Amino acid sequence: MPTDIEIARSAKKRPIMDVAETLQIAPQDVIPYGHDKAKIAAHHLTSLRAKADGKLILVTAINPTPAGEGKTTTSIGLADAMNRIGNKTLLSLREPSLGPCFGMKGGATGGGQSQIVPMEDINLHFTGDFHAITSAHNLLSAMIDNHIHWGGDSGIDPTRISWRRVLDMNDRNLRNIVTGLGGTKNGTPIETGFDITVASEIMAILCLARDMQDMQDRLERMVIGYRRGRSPVTAKDMNAVGAMMALLKDAMLPNLVQTLEGNPALVHGGPFANIAHGCSSVIATRAALKMADYVVTEAGFGADLGAEKFFNIKCRQAGLTPNAAVLVATVRALKMHGGIAKDDVGSVSYDALEKGLANLGRHIENMREFGVPVVVAINRFTSDTSGEIAAVEAFCEKMGVPVALCTHWAEGGHGAEDLARKVTQLIETTPTEFRPLYPSDMPLFEKIETIAKRVYRASRVDAPKSVRDQLKRWELEGYGDFPVCMAKTQYSFSSDAKLFGAPDGHVLQLRDVRLSAGAGFIVGICGEIVTMPGLPRRPSAESIYLNSTGQIEGLS
Amino acid sequence: MPTDIEIARSAKKRPIMDVAETLQIAPQDVIPYGHDKAKIAAHHLTSLRAKADGKLILVTAINPTPAGEGKTTTSIGLADAMNRIGNKTLLSLREPSLGPCFGMKGGATGGGQSQIVPMEDINLHFTGDFHAITSAHNLLSAMIDNHIHWGGDSGIDPTRISWRRVLDMNDRNLRNIVTGLGGTKNGTPIETGFDITVASEIMAILCLARDMQDMQDRLERMVIGYRRGRSPVTAKDMNAVGAMMALLKDAMLPNLVQTLEGNPALVHGGPFANIAHGCSSVIATRAALKMADYVVTEAGFGADLGAEKFFNIKCRQAGLTPNAAVLVATVRALKMHGGIAKDDVGSVSYDALEKGLANLGRHIENMREFGVPVVVAINRFTSDTSGEIAAVEAFCEKMGVPVALCTHWAEGGHGAEDLARKVTQLIETTPTEFRPLYPSDMPLFEKIETIAKRVYRASRVDAPKSVRDQLKRWELEGYGDFPVCMAKTQYSFSSDAKLFGAPDGHVLQLRDVRLSAGAGFIVGICGEIVTMPGLPRRPSAESIYLNSTGQIEGLS
Repeated sequence: MPTDIEIARSAKKRPIMDVAETLQIAPQDVIPYGHDKAKIAAHHLTSLRAKADGKLILVTAINPTPAGEGKTTTSIGLADAMNRIGNKTLLSLREPSLGPCFGMKGGATGGGQSQIVPMEDINLHFTGDFHAITSAHNLLSAMIDNHIHWGGDSGIDPTRISWRRVLDMNDRNLRNIVTGLGGTKNGTPIETGFDITVASEIMAILCLARDMQDMQDRLERMVIGYRRGRSPVTAKDMNAVGAMMALLKDAMLPNLVQTLEGNPALVHGGPFANIAHGCSSVIATRAALKMADYVVTEAGFGADLGAEKFFNIKCRQAGLTPNAAVLVATVRALKMHGGIAKDDVGSVSYDALEKGLANLGRHIENMREFGVPVVVAINRFTSDTSGEIAAVEAFCEKMGVPVALCTHWAEGGHGAEDLARKVTQLIETTPTEFRPLYPSDMPLFEKIETIAKRVYRASRVDAPKSVRDQLKRWELEGYGDFPVCMAKTQYSFSSDAKLFGAPDGHVLQLRDVRLSAGAGFIVGICGEIVTMPGLPRRPSAESIYLNSTGQIEGLS
Repeated sequence: MPTDIEIARSAKKRPIMDVAETLQIAPQDVIPYGHDKAKIAAHHLTSLRAKADGKLILVTAINPTPAGEGKTTTSIGLADAMNRIGNKTLLSLREPSLGPCFGMKGGATGGGQSQIVPMEDINLHFTGDFHAITSAHNLLSAMIDNHIHWGGDSGIDPTRISWRRVLDMNDRNLRNIVTGLGGTKNGTPIETGFDITVASEIMAILCLARDMQDMQDRLERMVIGYRRGRSPVTAKDMNAVGAMMALLKDAMLPNLVQTLEGNPALVHGGPFANIAHGCSSVIATRAALKMADYVVTEAGFGADLGAEKFFNIKCRQAGLTPNAAVLVATVRALKMHGGIAKDDVGSVSYDALEKGLANLGRHIENMREFGVPVVVAINRFTSDTSGEIAAVEAFCEKMGVPVALCTHWAEGGHGAEDLARKVTQLIETTPTEFRPLYPSDMPLFEKIETIAKRVYRASRVDAPKSVRDQLKRWELEGYGDFPVCMAKTQYSFSSDAKLFGAPDGHVLQLRDVRLSAGAGFIVGICGEIVTMPGLPRRPSAESIYLNSTGQIEGLS
């Protein structure tokens, strides 16, 4: 059985200029990065404005389990299948983060016969977008500390700087640090730390901004700390935004690559799915809708977090209307939701499967809450029995949703043609009635309660008085219109990672709240959120190397 | 008067594929980064092996002063002029560091009518080489701390880790930091810091390695810390090198751009000129020699540091034979060496000029010590009088070296044609007798003494016993064959930055020594060396912005 990287490497890639041509992008508007990657020039994006939008399909999933669901793989398989059945379809996916490739996670470019290529490049430096964000973020950090060093007149309190630094690396030791040691010449001692680059507010901004001007306005609004009197200090106050824009200029342009089957894919942006909204860029998605009849995109984690934020944050801010949602489930993961341990997911258990289907059912209901037509995709594993699959199909039939069995991992787009047909049919027959779950003018705490009760099915939200007071202060300061971005465990509808299935009546513990004034949302933190991952005992980095022909081995 | 960035932006650039074609690089061996930058594929580099080498010309300078010498500008002007007079000539220059662009220094792509373009891209992210080095460096850092976190069995002493982290940013506050705070789950408290990326040993290695295998061998040899018993721990011991190579794969390929006049330029690597050797990559220079009849390259700082290291480190390790050296001087800088203050360099003073010429004379003598034929280039400023220029010309005549007046800053290659003819004639008539200044098997301290006495004209080297003992220990450990890389002020032949002109009889203060086992040299530190610059009170970042058409303004 060939590995993902072996399959990716043996792919016959089309020249990226040819891929661009199928999207009718003029050669001078294609900015090549090698022969298999490109950015799309701003000129082309502007030229698209008058065109009509295609249909938008969100691929989301049940709550993730260690058994794997294959959301990205299904997105790719679906796009290939859509193109196979004659629907001009374009992917709009997230860029993977470099850091986690050296930890445990591996890459994020799909798997098996449903991948985007060049797999190694996309997973590592790609076109440098994340490096640009890292540079822009850390330039601001350096300018803040420099401002303090020279006794600048913003009045910022060195003990109230909230802007940290970032690196695209899993580096536990950088979580909590003290900088500025070594005496007067070497800065001012400050307690701070590094987050991973995808957790940078700049990443969220890059993914939500509509254009360069919007990007600049958002960067200027970012709160980087406070004065003693608690009034906020912004990036604009540091005179940093112009130089940051110079660093981010190219990073704002969507990247073009292709699937193993040679279909075009936009891959752009990749914000955290907890403290940020976890979706690919608005610029790429909007451009994709102009260039194709169907756009397949995805959101991070399960539908309770990913789809909810896609709808309430990305679609609201960008004025997007999703036409359908694909809910990816696997028999193995459903059995884990029904109580089976990871090591036993290969053994048949109708009992566990039936119980686990409650998780799928809950997500189906939630999609309906947003008015979005839904299809279930069963991402087939070789260990699945036909009886188990029939049980899932029966469940979906009972729920009144179309369901398709998918074998794209083994067979490529051909294995997702049934899904493609069902998605197309759904879009043709069932108009979307999409609406966000709450209006923008609802009080912030009520927004959190609305998500908790209607999506998570919690009985109530438990929050300290300090948190409720903070939310009220932000409303007075003009941030009351912001949507909320929930940061909670992705493994459960609840804030307890071990509550599998479809729990209800639980209490959501809202521990803290944060303001992302530039990204334009309030983060509600339930439980512990790690914004700088660590490496495991045996990092995958130890197994990566260049073979004798200079190719990368060990990246998965 | 248009600014450098305005001149650069209005340039009519040739498509980079055309530039590559003039070097007979096959289209499939050109890896484009946009339409005006490219990397040269490994396949092409290999295909060059059997070809004969062109002539190698080093551009170096008198000791730098705040008045400016224009070494890079002269390198570019000379290459354009060489091509104008019919000599097929290729530049091999260093990549600028992104960090300093936001401080005081500005870019490093030449100036006036002698620039390489695209100026903004080369000065900022370019093709991502420095970002790749940053990633590879910090991956190793993370793996070291992770190794300690999990109780790895290398026996490394957490208080003796010498490997720091790097960022391509001027960030004073990161010089001295403590990481790993916040309890057991968040690593181990370690005193450390960040250097700027160009100071990374990986940068020096990238610039000295002959090929991928050499690169890997050198990375494996890097010493990252010590055990309690003082035995060294290497990057290989951390199992990090394979993944680092994966990150550095593309960064090893030379970058191709062009001058304002459309001549090809390789721009690759940019190590510090104090704790490292300050020259562009061996891979690029060797490739350039195969692709052109003449190659113009440069070395950091003045000839006492830059040319000395170019000869003793780069040429020795890479087996290169320089055919000529161009010594760049300006009337203004010579007057400063003669005692004139910076604000007065515009006023005529033959007395100061005569005194200052001693600095030029000393460098001419030193080039002869290496057996390399030398030409002096007077980089003309508008304030220079014909009498002053005549004085410099008379001095050179007395010294028996050709001298050329250059106006390439104002006139482009046309203004350096006289220099080009003189360089060509010198190479044709005066065979190089290049030899390094000391043999590899000379004891390390004697190597330092040799440089101090013969290049700096010091009477002796003053070093604490601990430093001499350390050098002896390294000899016993097998590092005795290494050349030495001097880290001293670039402003004087001595270790006192204020000793202008041509001091002799001074005592060189050798404060410390460091081992760069991968780069393959011993660093001799004289005085204080800052490996992480800070930002000034008014960083140039504050003046950089995107204009209404999306172009960068304020970058100089």
